Amino acid sequence: MALFMTELTGTDLRKNMKEQALLQENMALAEWDQLTGMPVEGNEFRAELSSYLSGRFFQVATGAEAADLVKYFKENKEALTADEQALFDRYVKDYEEVAAIPEDEYAAFGHLTSEGQDAWTKAREANDYQIYAPALKALIETKKQFIKYWRKDEATPYDVLLNQFEPGLTVEKLDGIFDKLKQGIIDLQADLKANGTAPQADFLNRDIPVTLQREYVWDAAQRLGYDANKGRLDDTIHPFMQDLNRNDARITTRWNKNDFQMAVLGIYHEAGHGMFAQNVAEKWDYTPFNKGISMSIHESQSLFNEVMLGRSKDFWQHEYPIMQAAFEGRLDDVAFDDFYKGWMLSKPTLIRTEADPITYPLHIIIRYEIEKAIFNEDFNVADIESLWNAKYEEYLGIRPETAVEGVLQDIHWAGGDFGYFPSYALGHLYAAQFYHTLTQTFDVPALLQAGDLQPIIDWRREHVWQFGASKSPAAVLKDATGEALNPQYWLDLQRERYADVYDI
Amino acid sequence: MALFMTELTGTDLRKNMKEQALLQENMALAEWDQLTGMPVEGNEFRAELSSYLSGRFFQVATGAEAADLVKYFKENKEALTADEQALFDRYVKDYEEVAAIPEDEYAAFGHLTSEGQDAWTKAREANDYQIYAPALKALIETKKQFIKYWRKDEATPYDVLLNQFEPGLTVEKLDGIFDKLKQGIIDLQADLKANGTAPQADFLNRDIPVTLQREYVWDAAQRLGYDANKGRLDDTIHPFMQDLNRNDARITTRWNKNDFQMAVLGIYHEAGHGMFAQNVAEKWDYTPFNKGISMSIHESQSLFNEVMLGRSKDFWQHEYPIMQAAFEGRLDDVAFDDFYKGWMLSKPTLIRTEADPITYPLHIIIRYEIEKAIFNEDFNVADIESLWNAKYEEYLGIRPETAVEGVLQDIHWAGGDFGYFPSYALGHLYAAQFYHTLTQTFDVPALLQAGDLQPIIDWRREHVWQFGASKSPAAVLKDATGEALNPQYWLDLQRERYADVYDI
Repeated sequence: MALFMTELTGTDLRKNMKEQALLQENMALAEWDQLTGMPVEGNEFRAELSSYLSGRFFQVATGAEAADLVKYFKENKEALTADEQALFDRYVKDYEEVAAIPEDEYAAFGHLTSEGQDAWTKAREANDYQIYAPALKALIETKKQFIKYWRKDEATPYDVLLNQFEPGLTVEKLDGIFDKLKQGIIDLQADLKANGTAPQADFLNRDIPVTLQREYVWDAAQRLGYDANKGRLDDTIHPFMQDLNRNDARITTRWNKNDFQMAVLGIYHEAGHGMFAQNVAEKWDYTPFNKGISMSIHESQSLFNEVMLGRSKDFWQHEYPIMQAAFEGRLDDVAFDDFYKGWMLSKPTLIRTEADPITYPLHIIIRYEIEKAIFNEDFNVADIESLWNAKYEEYLGIRPETAVEGVLQDIHWAGGDFGYFPSYALGHLYAAQFYHTLTQTFDVPALLQAGDLQPIIDWRREHVWQFGASKSPAAVLKDATGEALNPQYWLDLQRERYADVYDI
Repeated sequence: MALFMTELTGTDLRKNMKEQALLQENMALAEWDQLTGMPVEGNEFRAELSSYLSGRFFQVATGAEAADLVKYFKENKEALTADEQALFDRYVKDYEEVAAIPEDEYAAFGHLTSEGQDAWTKAREANDYQIYAPALKALIETKKQFIKYWRKDEATPYDVLLNQFEPGLTVEKLDGIFDKLKQGIIDLQADLKANGTAPQADFLNRDIPVTLQREYVWDAAQRLGYDANKGRLDDTIHPFMQDLNRNDARITTRWNKNDFQMAVLGIYHEAGHGMFAQNVAEKWDYTPFNKGISMSIHESQSLFNEVMLGRSKDFWQHEYPIMQAAFEGRLDDVAFDDFYKGWMLSKPTLIRTEADPITYPLHIIIRYEIEKAIFNEDFNVADIESLWNAKYEEYLGIRPETAVEGVLQDIHWAGGDFGYFPSYALGHLYAAQFYHTLTQTFDVPALLQAGDLQPIIDWRREHVWQFGASKSPAAVLKDATGEALNPQYWLDLQRERYADVYDI
């Protein structure tokens, strides 16, 4: 495409988007390979390849051609179809997010994230937050500068970051949602502690050979709706789903022969991400609506599998005998009621990724409140550890004794990702609201007890998956459930389930 | 780089070569993934990605920048270091091979190869060569036209093709080598048949669980010199080695629990390719000397493992007890002499890839003679099957009864690869000549019997691997062995080994 073009068409826009999508697919493959089985000595070469690919991606997404497309179609939007106009809006958003930053500052930020991750690793080794604090401070200062470049009419600096992950989300809205959620969880926890009977869960640590776990989870993923012809299962340290395209969405897990719950719920979770990726409408192939799906909506689908189904008594009535058979007798002496209660055991943990369904959102709320303090109140970075520990004590009743089990547990900030954590909690709330709507539409308990998941799968495809990123999370939720986000559905569901499990 | 540049440096040349190398590394990863475990439905998307990558590669390798580099350094070669000058010569050769063809004809050829492979598949399904013949004819006609574009001072049209795979090789030279080889093999076969005693080899079909085979071959590959930290082992239908870079050279195999020889020799073979790739000198990273290693020399290293070592009595004296132990008693009743004789059983086969070490070159010589007839004597494509069958009967004493076990067995021609087959036979001859030189340098039988392969590995690294593609096959051979290719070493070695095995 020439710089002095006279006329452009939707085909030009699609061509540029397709090249971006192909490079992203390529980066996804290289990353998946690096994490699943690349030879250990391949690291330096892979870093070169990744750097080449991201450089090329940057060139395609922000170079002269992209600038021409943005300029031209801002003035000639009518030359695009309705779908292309929607794609163009997203294209402009992505373009301007990068183009707003002077090139040298953008490059400097890349180095800071690499230094941040390095400092984070060293701080973890020494179990000392202060080793990490200076690098974190530098990242935060740069991000504050970026916020100045990006900010338009957002009410506070932190709103700018929230918006990047969740279009339309504000501190004002989130404060209201999280306050209600926090109080509800704290009340429920207190109630369980005061009036409930904690279940026995020793059987969760029984020795189940990994080969049996693997066979069970792979079959279970397919019962949940994951298409094995469009995916594969590999072993990694940190489980993830990586979608190259809608016909190739791969999942991974880790295994512990004395903790089968980890792989079972882990695969339910990743299969949920995979099902979403496998079911985006074909028309969004090679566009940002296929690859840039909002985190909170994505997470709502993995959590739908993991929590809405994977913690449902109705679901396990059908699934437990299948798992018992797959584990070849190793759970045969555990009656269904005992199994289900043990499966649901709630216990506050210091580590977010090990949290049970009740306490998980508290981990997120703590991070949200700290991020807000950093960006809206210039909270002193050196003091984040004390703030973190105080909040864990207040909300969860437990206090980290070391930095590694506290403020150093997440890598997100070290990579410059601020404003990202709330999506995890929103995913929980969305999942519960979708589930509630489903119970109004179908006899969900009957379907689950019969192991007939197809109507639920079809509903999720129709109301969520097919849209990819073409609708905002808020619009998906509103159209599917008829109302805006309401955390009460999540609170009601958890209270109902845990009142049953804890006999109150 | 601008089109109207005034001065270029070696850095500009290296930058372009590096982008080519990175794209090749990327294509290698995508291809490896496709063949080892990509979800079955991912095919169409992968075809798009591969097509994008090869398009981009074509652009980098033959576009305006490459043209500038070629033009500039042809006139300013002294601006390059000695290494860069050698790289530039190779760069020009690769560039001109493509640039000589008008762009539309080059693109049309791409379609023909795709149609050729399609016709080949259909013809195999119907077991009917004539279904394939028209597409093959079209490919041959185009290749003949290309030869006209490429031909400089080569004596015959077929010389042009030979040269592309094996610089400096001519029909005249190859006729001499192959005639001597053919006669020697036919004589040896006749001698074995008339005077020898064929060994018992039933034990080769014993049931050896794949898990045991896998453990053994992975350890054995490392004993041969394959670095497990720079590779991995996967399962495929057609075994191969794919090197992304020298720190990441992956091998694959297929398994049959009733034919352990297949996986053992298959992995010896692929590990040989991998060892070569893992040991190219660092200075050739991201240059055509790292990725474009000549087929015959590469094959000589895989065959060195498979035939020179993998069929050596001295080698198996040390290795057999290790394999017996790995197979947990399943070969304990087979004495070493019986094992070795059975392992060496020679039997003519119709399928090239199933051939034993003696008859393998005959399969190649047949293909060579047919290719020569096609390109130098305008042999009628429709009659290739009869010619094929007649030659199998004459040289091997067996005649294909169907096209699938005859002329339709190889995919090479369907993909437009003519002149490629001879490299396989040259690989055998080179391996034997290297082996002969080694026996003049070390007490090879003693080393093999002691399982001390290190001196042999070091010799191969020093005399072959480190050079990558920076030396021609002929130069590697001459410098390492002190003389030009001499097929007598191969004939002598096989006669000596088989006279022993067949008791003559």
